Formats: sequence, structure tokens, C-alpha cells
Amino acid sequence: MPSRRDLANAIRVLSMDAVQQANSGHPGAPMGMADIAEVLWRDFLKHNPANPNWADRDRFVLSNGHGSMLLYSLLHLSGYELSLDDLKNFRQLHAKTPGHPEYGYAPGVETTTGPLGQGITNAVGFALAEKVLGAQFNRDGHEIVDHYTYAFLGDGCLMEGISHEACSLAGTLGLGKLVAIYDDNGISIDGDVEGWFTDDTPGRFEAYGWHVVRGVDGHDAEAVKKAIEEARSVTDKPSLICARTVIGFGAPNKQGGHDVHGAPLGGDEIAAAREHLGWNHGPFEVPADIYSEWDAKAKGESAEAEWNKVMDAYRAAYPDLAAEFERRIAGELVEDFDARAQALVEEAQAAMEKVATRKASEKALNGFGPFMPELLGGSADLTGSNNTWWKGCTLMSPSEPGANYISYGVREFGMAAIMNGVALHGGFIPYGGTFLVFSDYARNALRMAAIMKQRSIFVLTHDSIGLGEDGPTHQPVEHVPSLRIIPNMSVWRPCDVTETMAAWRSALSRNDGPTSLALTRQGLAPQERSAEQVANIAKGGYVLSDCDGEPDAIIIATGSEVQIAMDAKAKLSDKNIRVVSMPSTDVFEKQDAAYRESVLPSHVLARVAVEAAHVDYWYKYVGLDGRIVGMSTFGESAPAGQLFEYFDITADAVVAAVEDCLPE
Amino acid sequence: MPSRRDLANAIRVLSMDAVQQANSGHPGAPMGMADIAEVLWRDFLKHNPANPNWADRDRFVLSNGHGSMLLYSLLHLSGYELSLDDLKNFRQLHAKTPGHPEYGYAPGVETTTGPLGQGITNAVGFALAEKVLGAQFNRDGHEIVDHYTYAFLGDGCLMEGISHEACSLAGTLGLGKLVAIYDDNGISIDGDVEGWFTDDTPGRFEAYGWHVVRGVDGHDAEAVKKAIEEARSVTDKPSLICARTVIGFGAPNKQGGHDVHGAPLGGDEIAAAREHLGWNHGPFEVPADIYSEWDAKAKGESAEAEWNKVMDAYRAAYPDLAAEFERRIAGELVEDFDARAQALVEEAQAAMEKVATRKASEKALNGFGPFMPELLGGSADLTGSNNTWWKGCTLMSPSEPGANYISYGVREFGMAAIMNGVALHGGFIPYGGTFLVFSDYARNALRMAAIMKQRSIFVLTHDSIGLGEDGPTHQPVEHVPSLRIIPNMSVWRPCDVTETMAAWRSALSRNDGPTSLALTRQGLAPQERSAEQVANIAKGGYVLSDCDGEPDAIIIATGSEVQIAMDAKAKLSDKNIRVVSMPSTDVFEKQDAAYRESVLPSHVLARVAVEAAHVDYWYKYVGLDGRIVGMSTFGESAPAGQLFEYFDITADAVVAAVEDCLPE
Repeated sequence: MPSRRDLANAIRVLSMDAVQQANSGHPGAPMGMADIAEVLWRDFLKHNPANPNWADRDRFVLSNGHGSMLLYSLLHLSGYELSLDDLKNFRQLHAKTPGHPEYGYAPGVETTTGPLGQGITNAVGFALAEKVLGAQFNRDGHEIVDHYTYAFLGDGCLMEGISHEACSLAGTLGLGKLVAIYDDNGISIDGDVEGWFTDDTPGRFEAYGWHVVRGVDGHDAEAVKKAIEEARSVTDKPSLICARTVIGFGAPNKQGGHDVHGAPLGGDEIAAAREHLGWNHGPFEVPADIYSEWDAKAKGESAEAEWNKVMDAYRAAYPDLAAEFERRIAGELVEDFDARAQALVEEAQAAMEKVATRKASEKALNGFGPFMPELLGGSADLTGSNNTWWKGCTLMSPSEPGANYISYGVREFGMAAIMNGVALHGGFIPYGGTFLVFSDYARNALRMAAIMKQRSIFVLTHDSIGLGEDGPTHQPVEHVPSLRIIPNMSVWRPCDVTETMAAWRSALSRNDGPTSLALTRQGLAPQERSAEQVANIAKGGYVLSDCDGEPDAIIIATGSEVQIAMDAKAKLSDKNIRVVSMPSTDVFEKQDAAYRESVLPSHVLARVAVEAAHVDYWYKYVGLDGRIVGMSTFGESAPAGQLFEYFDITADAVVAAVEDCLPE
Repeated sequence: MPSRRDLANAIRVLSMDAVQQANSGHPGAPMGMADIAEVLWRDFLKHNPANPNWADRDRFVLSNGHGSMLLYSLLHLSGYELSLDDLKNFRQLHAKTPGHPEYGYAPGVETTTGPLGQGITNAVGFALAEKVLGAQFNRDGHEIVDHYTYAFLGDGCLMEGISHEACSLAGTLGLGKLVAIYDDNGISIDGDVEGWFTDDTPGRFEAYGWHVVRGVDGHDAEAVKKAIEEARSVTDKPSLICARTVIGFGAPNKQGGHDVHGAPLGGDEIAAAREHLGWNHGPFEVPADIYSEWDAKAKGESAEAEWNKVMDAYRAAYPDLAAEFERRIAGELVEDFDARAQALVEEAQAAMEKVATRKASEKALNGFGPFMPELLGGSADLTGSNNTWWKGCTLMSPSEPGANYISYGVREFGMAAIMNGVALHGGFIPYGGTFLVFSDYARNALRMAAIMKQRSIFVLTHDSIGLGEDGPTHQPVEHVPSLRIIPNMSVWRPCDVTETMAAWRSALSRNDGPTSLALTRQGLAPQERSAEQVANIAKGGYVLSDCDGEPDAIIIATGSEVQIAMDAKAKLSDKNIRVVSMPSTDVFEKQDAAYRESVLPSHVLARVAVEAAHVDYWYKYVGLDGRIVGMSTFGESAPAGQLFEYFDITADAVVAAVEDCLPE
């Protein structure tokens, strides 16, 4: 019977062989963490290779995602649909095995990792989701939600600031079913970390309120097993297991150094490693007895079958709750979502209220919230400013685990990546607020939501110089256009309550990606609309105010500048002016050509865009013949009204721009 | 004689009065930290109000920048050129006193703060600069560089991830003359921090290797004084003083709660506070005896005079070093910089080497480095990949404090904000590397460099899908265009060694803002150029290859796509095609209209832009009639060459685009 070391060596050789074949990749982490992974996956991990979507599986996150071959090896050996050919295609176009684990490519990859620190933060999100979902659905004797979240992480993750944000909050929230294993190998790309990373990491995590298992030999399977048992037994605190390992363990001449971190070992060293490890098999060759020991299919099937019994009993006892649980896990909206959403949009239009769109967003939450218990809200310490707290909110804490709102603290990046973990877990639609300008802090997590096609909703308020006195550091200029060019990020900048309601409707019903809502601090007048116009908001851009006959010029505006466009039109009463409201350019782009042409006829070249954001984006719609009224510098600290005058984002400026681009 | 408390109360009333007058702002922190500030500024801070640019002054950073009235009060009371009228104009347009402290607005503001966590990180940069500069210039008995850096910070800064990055590194580097004072008031915007921030902060900082002074009563001047003395006495570790304070101290009904954090107190509470504090003076009224005790002008003048003597002795002993010190502090380049730079650019053109532009960047560093000792380099743990280490580099550490290279560890945001602190300190031009995609992590610090007009140089390599196998998480798509729309950020994407050399020349000689260099992983062919063309690189965009007579079409390209444009032109030999290389759009935009017209004649509407980045940016140059060959989705994991084919960024695609937009 193969030893534990033999089983771990299967990971080592598959990893070094695949990296060699791809001629790029990272053998160091898979070889260093193979022994730990063997213990975790074979002795503890609750999963079913035949059903990677089983709701109550343990979640495993490889936060040091460059070690992707570790994960691919584990999935392959355990029996997931990931063949040897898939491993041989490591890092090739259209392979299931890209250079970093990408969500949606291989079964069993729970999240996309690679950008360091975000994996462990996603894992905090998984553990948070488990805790909240369990508190919401479990009933005495019916534990339908009861799984662990395991994360591997390295020095890089621990140096990244986001690890501080996420792990500090995990400690405060007492996420006891999160078990993180730190690959303490002392090496990062620049070399021995001693020159740039000397934290007492156990001390640091104890300061966060974590349970820490110190000084585990990561190559001693029994020690690792004991550490994981201990970690699992502490249920009121997250656990960090500090495992000392040798990077590239098994490569006799390169292990323990940074050369083994991110480059193929080379043929000679691979041969030497095979010999050193006593692995007498060819490239990508794994003996049957080793496969057999790794095979988790039977165990997984029976584990899921057991859970199915729990679920059956639950369904019998609580049929409505069970149906609701299944709806939420499936990510489906309530059946009458569309009708209710439509009613909310129409009511908003009828009410014609003048409020800030951040306040309109709160109205939306108060409208959708009561029939959307899957909402898990929050803010990075700006709850009152972001208006993210609606009437049904309760604050989540260790003593209120089933609540629906997280005070994330001043942790924008952590919040966004935790939200992504929550979304990936299932059972929730997470939304979280901060100032638009601080989307910068969270930016790569917004990008990851877009890459992973997750329904995270970012509530980004104070969306322009309209923020006023807090000044240039707090006034977004480039942020709305910067968000628009993140592929698969939907961006809305609504102009009043009705558009805000429609924006939320779009964000909530979108099931293939995130949405950023750019919302004002300042009050905005409501716009009159016909029923058709109200319906057209959902198309991202529409004619808000048309003219008789052919337009002389078209004014395109978003958000707080829509009223400025309308005022400009009023001043241009001797001209045929069409005003287009364009709350979401990406949604508009998805409409068919005929609709787009009907809104922006290609022969009308006298076009003026007005938006209190960087001008460069709008050439896409006004071309070289049009004009753009917007920002090209940073803002200033002053009352908002003065700033619009000072930066010349006014109806008069729009009028001048229109006159300037009309044919002589 | 006024008591210490009276002196502190002057800060309190000025702060609450100014916030009230502005009808917005943050009275809580200034009132809470007034006692601490009084002790620090009156008993310790080495500064001269008459010369805020004195090279060896202590640096003071208010990391919790929303408490700006604390700093403005201190500057005003100490005798800086900041009048009562300036305080009365708090948060008004064109005032020296914007909502957050903005570098360059009021004398004595060392850095722009507000985005939380970045102030303490800038402070780490100040302390790093002091340490390195001192080691480079001080000689036995001649301590011309010898100052402390003090930073105030609050709960928000400590929750932000960047505080982890910066403080961890500060501990490793042993920045002993950094003294941070934590305003431990237990309140953030969402309320009592207990619900979201329960770190054992002293334990955390001890884990970073800091010296921590625990449990200081922030309203007991003697205790504060003793703590600062203790902190100053420990010179091999940075110090954190944990000072327990009452937010809004002095406002009898609101202090200690979050209502006092970020809103005016209101007339009634202000009256009650005056009574409670025993302050019998009207709004903005400070009695003469209090002014007199605060006045730091005489003390500051004599302190600087003393330093001038030290400097005189140094100048006598080391005249060349003294001149070099003064040059560096003034931020002036060596006299023959232009000639040397020109020679480097010309040599690069003559050599015609095919290398990656990241490698070309290393060549540039090897060219400029030997005559630019002010370069302080570094990388966020990607030294070998970013090619940021040149032959003259030595690694900075506590035992090598005068070295010129920082291994920042995997801390992109921390690196960038530390660089900003180094630049603000003076004496250095900092540059630092990471992958372009991870500019996301650092993004707000890049923005802050632009806001503060600092010469930080960001070396951003692996700038497109050309990165290859590491896949979508590591392949920038939206990053170059996103950087271009940060106001005052100069962005270069050079196409070969010559353009890279010119880009570095531009970045180094630019003294009013930062530069981002987007560089390839993959090798790029050199382009032929006449002397005039070589000179025109400095104009940001230029005709790289012209045609006889009027162009039928213009192809605009940057970086790795310039060769693709040239190949397309070769395939279009029956057409009159001009190729424009546009390494820096912002520099091109600064050229006069005649030059721009000469490169891109406005009547030539058949224009194709090609760049392996998000397409939307290029409508600015090709308008609605042109075509853009680029990206609009995320990348994939595969060898780079295959990816350019797969995403159709090829000469054939450019040819097709040209043919598509030529008039029939």
C-alpha cells in the first residue's frame, strides 16, 4: 500500500511534469505543500468529485493560486472530471487548466486565484456565507448547512494588505469554520523573505483573535493531521495553521530556494527529483494503487447521500424553508421578481421625488429587500453615507449570525473580495457600499467579480465633484469611465429615483456578472417619462426628451448631468434638440443595432456628451465632430454647486458646446 | 499663564468653529487629539514656521486627514502663513484650507491625506528617505540629516490593508525615527468599532517588530510626553504610541459618540463646549497669551540656524557632498542630464536591439543610474521580472541603510504610497515595479502621486496578453487606458529600446507629476528612425513611417503593436499608409495644435488604432469613422503568440480594419 508520502509525491511529479511540459509555471508551492494537501484532502475534505456543486461541500481555496498544479493534481487524483490530458494541456489555450485556477474552467475550482491575498479573502467570504446561511436555515437537529472552508496561503498573501483586512474581520466575526494553512517556506520571488518580511505571523493572527497552531512540520503528515483536528475543534475562532515547509520539496538541488518558485525545474532536476522521491514512473504516469488511494468518488458519493438524507428530513419538517433554501442556492430570483420590480419602477416614476440617487438606492433596497432575503448588505464604514441600510437590516455579529448586514469596517478591498466569496458560495446576493473614489482601493476585486461572472453589487456613492467639500481626494473623476472598461462589469449612473430603481433591477437580475452603481450625494430632480420611456431605461440608453423632426443635435448625459442637459435643451428652444439619458453604456451596447441607431442616428454628428467625469470616454459616442462637457483635472474642495460652476459643467456650457458643433 | 489644556482647547474651538462655519467637516478627531498634538508640537516637533521647506525639519503627517482642522489649527497657532481668515474659509473654493489637507495648498502640509492608510504609509516613506539619505550623506560629527517623522492615525487607517503593508515593512527595515500615535477612540463612522474592529493593535504592531507604548491616556499631557520621549529613545524600531482618547473631547453632550465624528456640532453644542472647556472667547477668537505660548517662530528660527551651522561645517569639510546634497534636496537633475539623456537615446537607436521593453527599461536604468544617485529603486517582489535592478543596485536593510534599492515585498499599494512619501521628503526620485495588472492594487496611490504632483515612477511590466500563460488575472486589458485618464498621470507605452529610453528620460525630467511605464514581457523588434523621428519621440506621438503624398489612412499604434502596424503597412503597399507611434498620449496632447495636426491631419478620417488594451480609449483619436484593433474582453491563459492570433490583434486584422474604413 502506498505511503502518505507516495500519495503526496503523485502531486509533486504531476506538478513538475506539467510545468515542464508547459515550459512555464510554478512547481515550488505544489511540491512544498503536497504533504499538507494529501492529509487535508484525504482525511478531512468533505466533497464529492461527481458533484462539484453539492451545496454543503467543504470549500477549498488555493490562495497562492500560482501553485495551480497543486489544485489540478488534487482534482485529477480525487476523481473530478479533469483528465491527464487536461494536465498535459496545462497553460494552453482553451485548456481546463489555465496558469492560475480560473473559476468555471475546471470542476472543483471554487474561485479564481492568483492576485495574491484575494483567495484567503474569498475564503473569509465562504466562511461568512456558511455561518449566515446556516443561522438562517438550520433548525434544531437539521444542520443542512455545515461545512468548513479551508484555504492555503503563502508569504505573498500574508504580505498583501487585503489579508489584514479580511483576517482581522474574520476574527471579529468569529468565523470558526475557517481553517487557513500558511505555507511558511521563507521564500518569495525576490529570494529569502527575511529581507522584507519578518512578521511574527502567529502573533499577528492572535492579535486578530484567531486560534493559531504554531510550528507544524508541513512534511510530517501526522503533525499536519493533528493540527487540522485541533483547528476544526475550535469553533468560535478562525484557525491558522503555520506549517513550515521546504519550497519545491523533492527537487534535490533546487528545493528551498527561489529558483524553484516560478520556473520549470528542467529535465535534469526532474530526473533527480524522481530518483530522490523514489518515483519510478514516467512523465504523467501514476500507478493504479496510488490512484486508488486518492479516489474520493465513493466516499464523496456517500457523504452527499448522507447529506441528502438530512435534506430530505428537513424538507419533510420545513417544506417551505427547504424550497427557499434550494431557490437561494440555485441563485434564482423569486418567481414574481419581474412583476414586483416593474411595480417598483413604475411607483418611483409616479412619485416624482427629488432625492439624491444614493437615497433612491435606499428606496430601492426598501422596495426589493422585503422579498429578497438573499440580500447580504454592508458598507466599508460608510453605512449612513452609502444608504446601504434598509428597514429590514440587522447587523451580523457572532451573537447575531443570521443577520443580513455586515459592517465591514474601513476595508474596501476586503469587503469587495469577501462579497465575491459570498456570491461564489451561493445563497446570497451580496451588495456593499463605499465612496466611488474608493473603488480604487477595491478595484482588483471588482475586476475579479467580473472575471468570475459573480453577482456582486457595488454601491458607489458620492459619484462626482457633487461630493463637494471633502475635496479632490474624495471626488471621483476617472472612476466611472475606468469601471466601464473593466470587461463584464456593468456600470449604472442613474439620474433619478426611477433610473436608480431600474439600475437595481438590472443588477439584481443579472446572473453573469457584477454591477457598479454610481450614485450622487446631492439631490436630483425627477424626470418625466412615458411608460415606453420607463421601459427603455432597461436598455441602458434612451431618448428622454425628443424634438419634432430631425434633431439638430443630440445631448447625451448621465446621472446628475441629465438635468443639466434638459436645462440646456430648454435654453436651445430654437433648435431641434434630443436629450438621451445613458445610465448604462454597457447595457446600451448590448441592444440591437436598430435600437441603438434609433437613439443615436449615425447621421447626426452634432453630439454633446455631458458627464461630471473624465471626458475621454465619451469620444466613443460623440466622435471627433462632437463636444464633451466634463472633467479633465482633479476637483477642488468647495460646496458642490460652486464646483459645477467652477468646472463649467452647466447648462450654459452645454449650450455653448452644442452651438459650437452645429454645422454653420 | 495658560495651561496645556488651555492651549489644546485653542485647537478644539478653532476646529469646531471652522467646521460649523463651513457647515461640514470633522470636529471629532481634532478635539480628541488636541492634547496629544499640543505636547508633540510644542515639546518635540522640530520645525520652522517661517521656512516650511527646511530640509531637516521633522515631518508631521495627519494620516486621519479628515481631521484637517487639527493640522490647520496647529499651523495657524504655530505661526505658519495660515491666517484666521484662512481658517474661516475652511472648505471653500480656492482656500488654503480644503476639506482634507492637500499638499501645496497650505504651508506645512507635508502630504495630502484623506484616503485612509496612505498617510501612515507616506510617513513610512518619509522615515525611509530620512534613513537612507542620512546614511548616504551624514559623516562622523556631521549629522545633516537627522529628523523624526511623526504620524497621527486613527482606527480607519489601522483597518485599511495598506497599514499592514507599510507597518510590516517599517518594522523589517527598522525605521526607528518613525513615531506613530494611534488615536484609539473606539469610534468609526458606523459607530462603536467593537462590532467590526477588535484587533489587539499593540500585539499586532509588536508582531511587526515595532516598539509599542501601550495604554497612554491621550488627555494626560505628561503621560503623552513620557510616551513620546520613550518612543524617540528607541532608535532601532519604529514606535507606536497607543493613546486612548475621547472623540470630540470637550463637546459635553456629543463626545465619545460617532455623531461628533463627521458633522458640525451645531450652535447649542458649541456653546455648551465653550462653557465646558472654560473658553470665554467668541468664534475664531484666541487670546494673545495663548497665541504667544503656541508661537513657534523664534524657536523654529533658532533651530534652523543651528542646523545651518551644521550644514556650514559640512560644506567646509565636504564641499562636493554638500553641493550634491543641495542639488538632491532641490530635486534638480545633474547639469548635463539633457546631454547624457540624448546620448543614451541616440545610442539606443543606433544599437537596434530586439529586447522586451522591460529589459530596455533595465538598460535605461543602467544608462541613467550611474549619474543619478537620487534614484531609489524597488519592486513589489518582482525584481527579476520587472527588471528594476540595475548594475549599481544595493539592497537596503537595517545594516545597509545607505543602499539604493528596496525589496518592498508583495506590497504594491504600500510600495506606491511609500514611494510618494520618499518623493515628498526630497532627495530622491523613487521608482518601483510590479506587473501592470497589479497597478490595480496600488491605484489610489498612483492617483495621489498625480494629485500631489510627485515624481514617482511606476515600472509596470507584462503589459498585455503578451504576458501569456499566467492568464486573465495577470493580463492587463483596461489598465493602460485607465491610467491615462488619471489627471496628471503621464503614461508611456514604448515600442522598443529607443522609445523606452525616451520614456525614462521624460519620467526623470518631469518635475510636476508621476509617470507610469507600461512595458512588455516579450521581445520587440527595434524600429528605424531618422534623427528627427528620434527627437519627436519626446512629443509623445510622431510619424514613424510616412507615405508619399496624402495618406489614405493612418495607423496609430503603441508598444508591442507598433510592429504589427508596420507589418500591416507593408501588406497595404498599394495604399498610402502613415504609421504613427503614440507612446504617450498625454505628452502628445501637450504639443501645439500645429504639431498634432501635422501628425494626425484632421481631414484624414480613415484611421485605425491598434493596441492590445481596451478599445474604448481610442475613439478619441479615430472617432466614429475609424476602427480599433484591441481588446474588449479578458484574456486567456496560453502562449503569447497564440493569444495575439486568438484575439485577432494581428497585421491581417489591421489590414482588414484599414480596408473597412477607407472610403469606397
